[in-house]
Amino acid sequence: MSDDLRRRPVGVFDSGLGGLTVLRALHERLPGEDLVYFGDTARVPYGTKGEKTVRAFARQDAGVLVELGVKLVVVACNTASAFALDHLQEVLPVPVLGVIGPGVGEAVRVSRGGPVGVIGTSGTIRSGRYQEGLRRLLPDTPIVARECPLFVPLVEEGLMGHALTAMAADGYLAPLRAAGVDTLILGCTHYPLLKDDIARVMGPEVALVDSAEALAAAADELLGARGLRRRDGTGPSVPEREGDLCFLLSDIPWKFAEIGARFLGRPIADVRTVGLDEMEEAGRRLAERA
Amino acid sequence: MSDDLRRRPVGVFDSGLGGLTVLRALHERLPGEDLVYFGDTARVPYGTKGEKTVRAFARQDAGVLVELGVKLVVVACNTASAFALDHLQEVLPVPVLGVIGPGVGEAVRVSRGGPVGVIGTSGTIRSGRYQEGLRRLLPDTPIVARECPLFVPLVEEGLMGHALTAMAADGYLAPLRAAGVDTLILGCTHYPLLKDDIARVMGPEVALVDSAEALAAAADELLGARGLRRRDGTGPSVPEREGDLCFLLSDIPWKFAEIGARFLGRPIADVRTVGLDEMEEAGRRLAERA
Repeated sequence: MSDDLRRRPVGVFDSGLGGLTVLRALHERLPGEDLVYFGDTARVPYGTKGEKTVRAFARQDAGVLVELGVKLVVVACNTASAFALDHLQEVLPVPVLGVIGPGVGEAVRVSRGGPVGVIGTSGTIRSGRYQEGLRRLLPDTPIVARECPLFVPLVEEGLMGHALTAMAADGYLAPLRAAGVDTLILGCTHYPLLKDDIARVMGPEVALVDSAEALAAAADELLGARGLRRRDGTGPSVPEREGDLCFLLSDIPWKFAEIGARFLGRPIADVRTVGLDEMEEAGRRLAERA
Repeated sequence: MSDDLRRRPVGVFDSGLGGLTVLRALHERLPGEDLVYFGDTARVPYGTKGEKTVRAFARQDAGVLVELGVKLVVVACNTASAFALDHLQEVLPVPVLGVIGPGVGEAVRVSRGGPVGVIGTSGTIRSGRYQEGLRRLLPDTPIVARECPLFVPLVEEGLMGHALTAMAADGYLAPLRAAGVDTLILGCTHYPLLKDDIARVMGPEVALVDSAEALAAAADELLGARGLRRRDGTGPSVPEREGDLCFLLSDIPWKFAEIGARFLGRPIADVRTVGLDEMEEAGRRLAERA
């Protein structure tokens, strides 16, 4: 494996800004790697949209990262992982990791034998991918899945801890509580910001699984297994450097700075926008490889 | 004016399904005209996105209608009207009508001299277009404008009359109520479905302006003034026929049938999807004309 390849950045894409929670986890786990984030803020959200559309968008998003020369594509968006991971595995010239496998693995690890719950967008839940993954590893465990479509707009409006969010959480989570789940997968990048609101309804004994850290661990492992971990110079004796973070968005939305900082945990600097024509072109080039 | 041109359909576009309220008003006002609706369901919503993105999307949406040979383009989406109407007037080969002018006109007509309020998406309100239009016609009247970003997802979830919607309405509308507005423009195609929720907070004495009917009246007038009203054969003696309704969408979203029927007031039949590449191409052809 050439040093040139190892020095390439890791690419992360998401339907919008929610995936910055994944970027943050990757940066903590792999502080020496350069990371490029692409958020499709022009077409967000994906969770309400159909499979064919989400696959086409995901191909374009991944295509933008591939054109930048990334060594690995991480799909932070749960809906894109649900609908497009198999497709991306076919068309991408680099390895690709989705968020659902690591999330399922983490849920299995922390589960104490009771029913397992999963919440997400309409697309993620209706795709059945989390449910399939859990059933394969925990064939005798009841699984309770629930769409929570208002959670994304509530987070984007900054209403964590607000009475509106509390009321929505009560409604969405009642069936999960009634089923007695002991483990709940937060199957959307926005939901970790609602951990307190969700824990209030579910109670302190329910383990809330945020897939971001499990995904970062999976990325670390994959880079190691494929010999793709960054190395400057000839070996581990080279002084450490902190990896660069670079941000690409398809739109600069209202409240972008505020929402972005909420997910990333610090202000976002150096944002470049990607045009619709660039995205279209990147998606087309990938499709031609397939 | 040739009969061929008069027989062409009227095109209506919107960011998603909300514009079906405008289609309904057009069909009631102009029952003999064929109507083509294009909803950009793949990229909905527009109201949270930036001006440049909304202009590019609006050009593509209008381009799709122009390629179908429409004689008039009606912009049902308030955000697209706010950001792109001037641009569309430059590049379109047919007349174009936005929703803001007719909405302002209707508000001025029903206003009783007190402050006038306007509610809409973040994009519509931040563009200042409604405020400018009102200020021009009512220079001495206080204007109170307010973003209501959760109203769109609440309507899409079908939560009209729900406690969540009541709580959101209380929060958003309190400043308008406190200002004593006597007229309130519902500056988003989704909001007419919340008329009861809004009236409950504002009180029965406040006039709620739904721009759909004013827009349909403006379309009727424009077709008349330009000699574009549909005529089959040679004159008014020809028997009337009911115009066709045709639906194009860029995505078939989850809950599409349910949400569509809610806005249109009847089930939607004969839906065709438009590909991202077709939209990109239609937008590019229009841009080249400019």
